[in-house]
Amino acid sequence: MSGNTFGNIFTLTTFGESHGEAIGGIIDGCPAGLKIDVDFVQNELDRRKPGQSHIVTQRKENDAVNFLSGIFEDITTGAPIGFVINNDNPKSKDYSHLKDAFRPSHADFTYQQKYGHRDYRGGGRSSARETASRVVAGAIAKLLLKRHKVELFAYVSQVHNIKLNKSHTEINAADIEKNSIRCPDEKTAQQMITHIENIKKQGDTVGGTITCVIKNTPIGLGEPVFNKLHAELGKAMLSINAVKGFEYGAGFDCINYKGSELNDIFENKNGIHTKTNHSGGIQGGISNGEDIYFNVAFKPVATIMQPQQSVNAAGDEIIVEGRGRHDPCVLPRAVPIVEAMAALVLADFLLLNKITKL
Amino acid sequence: MSGNTFGNIFTLTTFGESHGEAIGGIIDGCPAGLKIDVDFVQNELDRRKPGQSHIVTQRKENDAVNFLSGIFEDITTGAPIGFVINNDNPKSKDYSHLKDAFRPSHADFTYQQKYGHRDYRGGGRSSARETASRVVAGAIAKLLLKRHKVELFAYVSQVHNIKLNKSHTEINAADIEKNSIRCPDEKTAQQMITHIENIKKQGDTVGGTITCVIKNTPIGLGEPVFNKLHAELGKAMLSINAVKGFEYGAGFDCINYKGSELNDIFENKNGIHTKTNHSGGIQGGISNGEDIYFNVAFKPVATIMQPQQSVNAAGDEIIVEGRGRHDPCVLPRAVPIVEAMAALVLADFLLLNKITKL
Amino acid sequence: MSGNTFGNIFTLTTFGESHGEAIGGIIDGCPAGLKIDVDFVQNELDRRKPGQSHIVTQRKENDAVNFLSGIFEDITTGAPIGFVINNDNPKSKDYSHLKDAFRPSHADFTYQQKYGHRDYRGGGRSSARETASRVVAGAIAKLLLKRHKVELFAYVSQVHNIKLNKSHTEINAADIEKNSIRCPDEKTAQQMITHIENIKKQGDTVGGTITCVIKNTPIGLGEPVFNKLHAELGKAMLSINAVKGFEYGAGFDCINYKGSELNDIFENKNGIHTKTNHSGGIQGGISNGEDIYFNVAFKPVATIMQPQQSVNAAGDEIIVEGRGRHDPCVLPRAVPIVEAMAALVLADFLLLNKITKL
Amino acid sequence: MSGNTFGNIFTLTTFGESHGEAIGGIIDGCPAGLKIDVDFVQNELDRRKPGQSHIVTQRKENDAVNFLSGIFEDITTGAPIGFVINNDNPKSKDYSHLKDAFRPSHADFTYQQKYGHRDYRGGGRSSARETASRVVAGAIAKLLLKRHKVELFAYVSQVHNIKLNKSHTEINAADIEKNSIRCPDEKTAQQMITHIENIKKQGDTVGGTITCVIKNTPIGLGEPVFNKLHAELGKAMLSINAVKGFEYGAGFDCINYKGSELNDIFENKNGIHTKTNHSGGIQGGISNGEDIYFNVAFKPVATIMQPQQSVNAAGDEIIVEGRGRHDPCVLPRAVPIVEAMAALVLADFLLLNKITKL
Repeated sequence: MSGNTFGNIFTLTTFGESHGEAIGGIIDGCPAGLKIDVDFVQNELDRRKPGQSHIVTQRKENDAVNFLSGIFEDITTGAPIGFVINNDNPKSKDYSHLKDAFRPSHADFTYQQKYGHRDYRGGGRSSARETASRVVAGAIAKLLLKRHKVELFAYVSQVHNIKLNKSHTEINAADIEKNSIRCPDEKTAQQMITHIENIKKQGDTVGGTITCVIKNTPIGLGEPVFNKLHAELGKAMLSINAVKGFEYGAGFDCINYKGSELNDIFENKNGIHTKTNHSGGIQGGISNGEDIYFNVAFKPVATIMQPQQSVNAAGDEIIVEGRGRHDPCVLPRAVPIVEAMAALVLADFLLLNKITKL
Repeated sequence: MSGNTFGNIFTLTTFGESHGEAIGGIIDGCPAGLKIDVDFVQNELDRRKPGQSHIVTQRKENDAVNFLSGIFEDITTGAPIGFVINNDNPKSKDYSHLKDAFRPSHADFTYQQKYGHRDYRGGGRSSARETASRVVAGAIAKLLLKRHKVELFAYVSQVHNIKLNKSHTEINAADIEKNSIRCPDEKTAQQMITHIENIKKQGDTVGGTITCVIKNTPIGLGEPVFNKLHAELGKAMLSINAVKGFEYGAGFDCINYKGSELNDIFENKNGIHTKTNHSGGIQGGISNGEDIYFNVAFKPVATIMQPQQSVNAAGDEIIVEGRGRHDPCVLPRAVPIVEAMAALVLADFLLLNKITKL
Repeated sequence: MSGNTFGNIFTLTTFGESHGEAIGGIIDGCPAGLKIDVDFVQNELDRRKPGQSHIVTQRKENDAVNFLSGIFEDITTGAPIGFVINNDNPKSKDYSHLKDAFRPSHADFTYQQKYGHRDYRGGGRSSARETASRVVAGAIAKLLLKRHKVELFAYVSQVHNIKLNKSHTEINAADIEKNSIRCPDEKTAQQMITHIENIKKQGDTVGGTITCVIKNTPIGLGEPVFNKLHAELGKAMLSINAVKGFEYGAGFDCINYKGSELNDIFENKNGIHTKTNHSGGIQGGISNGEDIYFNVAFKPVATIMQPQQSVNAAGDEIIVEGRGRHDPCVLPRAVPIVEAMAALVLADFLLLNKITKL
Repeated sequence: MSGNTFGNIFTLTTFGESHGEAIGGIIDGCPAGLKIDVDFVQNELDRRKPGQSHIVTQRKENDAVNFLSGIFEDITTGAPIGFVINNDNPKSKDYSHLKDAFRPSHADFTYQQKYGHRDYRGGGRSSARETASRVVAGAIAKLLLKRHKVELFAYVSQVHNIKLNKSHTEINAADIEKNSIRCPDEKTAQQMITHIENIKKQGDTVGGTITCVIKNTPIGLGEPVFNKLHAELGKAMLSINAVKGFEYGAGFDCINYKGSELNDIFENKNGIHTKTNHSGGIQGGISNGEDIYFNVAFKPVATIMQPQQSVNAAGDEIIVEGRGRHDPCVLPRAVPIVEAMAALVLADFLLLNKITKL
């Protein structure tokens, strides 16, 4: 209701502000009997954490997950899985300059208006730090999906004007983690990295796109009408900080085709498949067994190392300027977040689909 | 859970198949005391119905809404609003040719696999006929929004390769209903219409984009983290049949800008506003009072009047070909559906926002 | 949210007022592939309908259910099941005497205060007529439960001061429908009937208790902590008009025992069972395979054929007196309602339990 | 869905097992701007904690609540309120004797059957320790209710065969905390305490009833049909460990009256009120402004200090006997739990009622 819970059966509820004592959440509805590899979960968190390379923020955050319940002798019990990630940031740090400032294209103004009272330190509840909890839950969801052979990966497919000129069928998932930008084409990756270095020197930021691919999805996931598989994936992606757009399958490019060109013809080759996959593995909101793929557009990070005009709560003109260590490009750190949210959607529909027919 | 309910407080649950006795739904959570103009609701339905112009399907469907409860002496009582729209289609018509056929890029295959048993007549539950119920509920939501001065309209901004070269700030909402394609620029509209006429002659179909604009939104709508205003709008739009993509504000184009270029600077001119509106009226998932605008991509209708290769349930190769009267381009009829879904999202958040602070 | 939907996965949403055009509802989440015996559903409705015997209201209501969707060729498709029951009552009838009157122990006053505007005709939304929709959905749930061998029945165990002196293990379910009061002991039944006849002559009303028994429940139904099986059963029963109390297993009588007397000892006789069943088939909120049994207390019907003092909306003193044909004792008609609500709870937990463990 | 969340708008989700690292929860939907008195919250927890008197368990548990989010400078921000209560129990303690044992009238058997894998230490998730999290959330709800002048208290009205012979209108709430059994009549309280001392010497346990009273409730709380105010109160109470029955207003005793005797006559004395209050402050599921009162039946604690026959997971006969320090009578510690659950229900409906009419 208040927007802090995601999912229907396999659910995640998160809590926590950027500079409070801890963030964390409760994963509910995970079936009993699932082996939890805590190292895998921590590794997923490490893929998201600050300071992992020179093209992301150099803040030091430990981001160690601590499970408090729901797992006994390394196996889920069906009870809710509570977890916390302590915040390393010193509470004593001075954030008083942010108290009344409305930073451009941040959530300061809207939170102040909506709630009347807010934790202004580092963005408080609106900070992308909250996504660390999503990565924890997404890792559990991935473990569940692995039991069902579902494979899932995301990668950076565009940074500003540098675009990966390969479709998702032409890349190798094993190449994604080989560079700090998480683009599975080494040459393009280096161009992206160099570009981000330049942008960083300017005190500026850039956005781009992340492409996500899901393979071996069972046929039948997704609930028709309002909870179509791609509608939930879209909501999941749009709920990530800085996302401005979502498209799946042919996406916005579908406009350029006629029906006779875009339709995916069925054929029977060791089972019913489509010759092409403009549908993106989803038809009528339900997975058809082909690869699911979609793109997510991220805007440039709003915090820049340049002075910007703004106003404060009193309505007076002020100048704001980023302090500390921020991301010139958030995309490499957003890759595990995109994967986590996709995994949550898939795990939820996987469970729900078990009770669809007698 | 099963995907037939939309919303949190102001909710719509729909039922009905394309060729069953009736479709309909239950609107719940509408506050008591709202005057219902049934003619307005019916007029919204008429904007969606088949046969309204020569560029859409020539099927005859009456689509008369019949309210069964929740409204007493033309005013809502707070009780659930049940309604039905009878189906005019003769049950006796022969649909046996569709019984085992999997039409390309339709939901026949996925429904059969998911449920094992389906009403195959005219797409059954997967038919876009279901969206008539959304238009009814959206009309009620619009009446609630009007009480709060919120204005909302959508229009066709692209058909295949013909694009309206005006932004949402350059068009006049009053021009939308002046032509059958619902594009508020007469010259572009005529080009679109002519193009659709040609496509129809080919027995083919085309898609395009619809742009939706919401004005006078109160500041503070949307729930942070998972239920961001644009995330729910995105889900709402992606739940409409044939939609492949959603973007709001700068959308996918945000990739082409640096942070310093894209950030919306606050200024105080009779209240705090942003100089530019790349944010699309939403910051941190919460409305900031500026215009909300977004684009929705529709693929070409899957049913074409040309023979297509496919397979049937037995896995045998078959040829399918559209029969009857179908839409060469669904966009003009989708305009009221986009508006209805946007209205449902806004009405829901409007109510929820009333209990956000003491 | 607004209280018109029951259940988590297998859900019922109802609409409709006593004297509107129709009542009805949407059953969602029923698995595909379930054979629907419409005659069985109608028969359940007939067990609830007015006029079925001389000890209940002599109103004539046809109460014919009309399914509009979700069932194709007599089998559920997984799509929502919409249904309506038309109201026979003439709209033209004069209810103006009720417009401003607050009948004692009715919902007139609270509805007026809560909503400001209400359909006052025959109680409107607060009328027990709404429970007809529950009986329809409960009948579908019973068909699902039958597939899992679950048996479920209810009976009148007390009317005013006349109490059935047999426990649920001493009666025969086949005897319940043998008399008009639905008490499975013929002698007690006749005493109850005679007493109700006398009460009716006085223009008065009486209440009593209904006992419900569920046999062959699979072990494991119910979700711990907040959604315990008996907590949901309790909510379900307390949501029925005129219910004032709920107890399961030993119930309120548990107070009279010490732990050493009340504990149910486990033994292994062709499987693990308890020697006694004070737990009422539920331990820790989860079914243990023993018989589930509970009692529901119904107050006397509030409408009596005697003049009563009251006030109207203006706060003036008035005299109200029941008109028309009302129930001197609602219990025999409430038996199928109790069963229906119990069936909805069980069906919901049955589905949910399928995804509890890997 | 999985039963770990309570409420619709003002919600509590709990996690944690009796002997895990910590228990805790997330309170969501609490409006921004509420002053939180942490000492008050801790005091509520202290009313529930073990070791507070000689008639309850002598276990030492610190039960210190630690808020992690959602409160900034002692005021709620509208963000979710995460909290933890660390478990003091040494993990190293030996619980292996419980690993395969099914203790009589505990949840060991049903959890094992339902989940296949469980944390058997001290009852794990089924332990009443979970209710500490409810008391924390209930304390926040009480603070919200206080802002609306709602008063709420509970007390022990019966222990085994010793019954308080005063109605809720005859006692003084200020007397409740004056003795260790929390009965507001000193003489009865001492009888209860002496009786519990004797029962404890026998190594046995007893149950009883708790009565709860809510004063100054605004008219209009509760949602009709399925979410009636008393139905949610009933569910809330029945979800508390060891509860076997719930009745409100006249309760089960309503059976002994005729309609003419039980109906509550309206009169206008400085506003519309009822002369009597058999309705228990609720009519048609909605509060009418009179005192709400209800009784909750608790069975004797299942753990007794006597040998009991049972079986283990292998189906073999075993003897189990309580170890450590357990409650001979749980009622005094259950009083704050009953209050907490009642407060959660009221707070939720209070918020929801704000959007019922325009």
